[in-house]
Amino acid sequence: MPRTSNKVERLMEAAKELIHQQGYNQTTLADIAQKSGVPLGNVYYYFKTKDEIAAAVIEEYRQAVLKVLSDVDANEPDPRQRLLWFIKRMSGHKDEVATHGCPVGSLCQELNKDATSLAKRADDIIKFEVKWAADQFKLMGRKDAMDLAVQLIATLQGVSLLANAMKSSGLIGKQLARLQEWIEEM
Amino acid sequence: MPRTSNKVERLMEAAKELIHQQGYNQTTLADIAQKSGVPLGNVYYYFKTKDEIAAAVIEEYRQAVLKVLSDVDANEPDPRQRLLWFIKRMSGHKDEVATHGCPVGSLCQELNKDATSLAKRADDIIKFEVKWAADQFKLMGRKDAMDLAVQLIATLQGVSLLANAMKSSGLIGKQLARLQEWIEEM
Repeated sequence: MPRTSNKVERLMEAAKELIHQQGYNQTTLADIAQKSGVPLGNVYYYFKTKDEIAAAVIEEYRQAVLKVLSDVDANEPDPRQRLLWFIKRMSGHKDEVATHGCPVGSLCQELNKDATSLAKRADDIIKFEVKWAADQFKLMGRKDAMDLAVQLIATLQGVSLLANAMKSSGLIGKQLARLQEWIEEM
Repeated sequence: MPRTSNKVERLMEAAKELIHQQGYNQTTLADIAQKSGVPLGNVYYYFKTKDEIAAAVIEEYRQAVLKVLSDVDANEPDPRQRLLWFIKRMSGHKDEVATHGCPVGSLCQELNKDATSLAKRADDIIKFEVKWAADQFKLMGRKDAMDLAVQLIATLQGVSLLANAMKSSGLIGKQLARLQEWIEEM
């Protein structure tokens, strides 16, 4: 499977957008083919099933999170500053999140209702973020690091859900500022 | 449409459970008929479409929230105690939430990806909870009542999502205790 193929990239991009905008179950391989401009007959050459393309999309999200967090670990020695930066990062996606929800969180929520192994893959991204945040709180000397980490990631996920339900990107800005204040005062 | 019919109740109960467990889009009228024991041909007598039954389920959730919150308003004069009680209420659904997510929140997240009017109905329940919580914070003399209310409801939603992704009902208990402490210290 030539992963470097331009067609694979176009298919992945289309799948990512469609799954985020209309959900996994409402997206067909035919939709993905049409959006990407790759003929459906050709899609099967790269991805046998919709599950296969979803697994690839989830893996791309996972790699992106791993990269972003290892970059901040490498470039910023202060755990508090790392957490502040992680929170700030979400403000760059405000409008997208208010319109369609968090791409990872909403996919998790959807896949956990299906009885497939895809859910576990999506869940792992959330778990990784929680673990990373707990590591930072530990470095800050907090004994309740794990609970703080769950609280932080849960709040970010909940803010995404409420911004989406209330169609308000302004809500995200306000809540991120509150979270930053919480971390600063810690 | 005889709403008092036993068959309608059975259909609603089946729809509620199936939508919560496997999602709205993955649930068919045939699934609902089968689970309720009402013959499919008979279902159409009560509900013409799946949207109609989903609208009825959402309305039932909305009425339940309205009733619960107006009961607490009537029986508990202290806004702080009302909020504490509201948080505590979720602990009664811990296992269910860890297995399938928040019935209202996960439905909101799913419906907001479809371009139908059902999403707005589900969103209204979340908005109502936020408004109610803001009223309590206002009664407590807080000027940032609306931001606090968004933070509270967002955290509850995010905790549901994380408990579901991490398959941990224990996480819910810990986070609810933190939220209660936050309200008590306010």
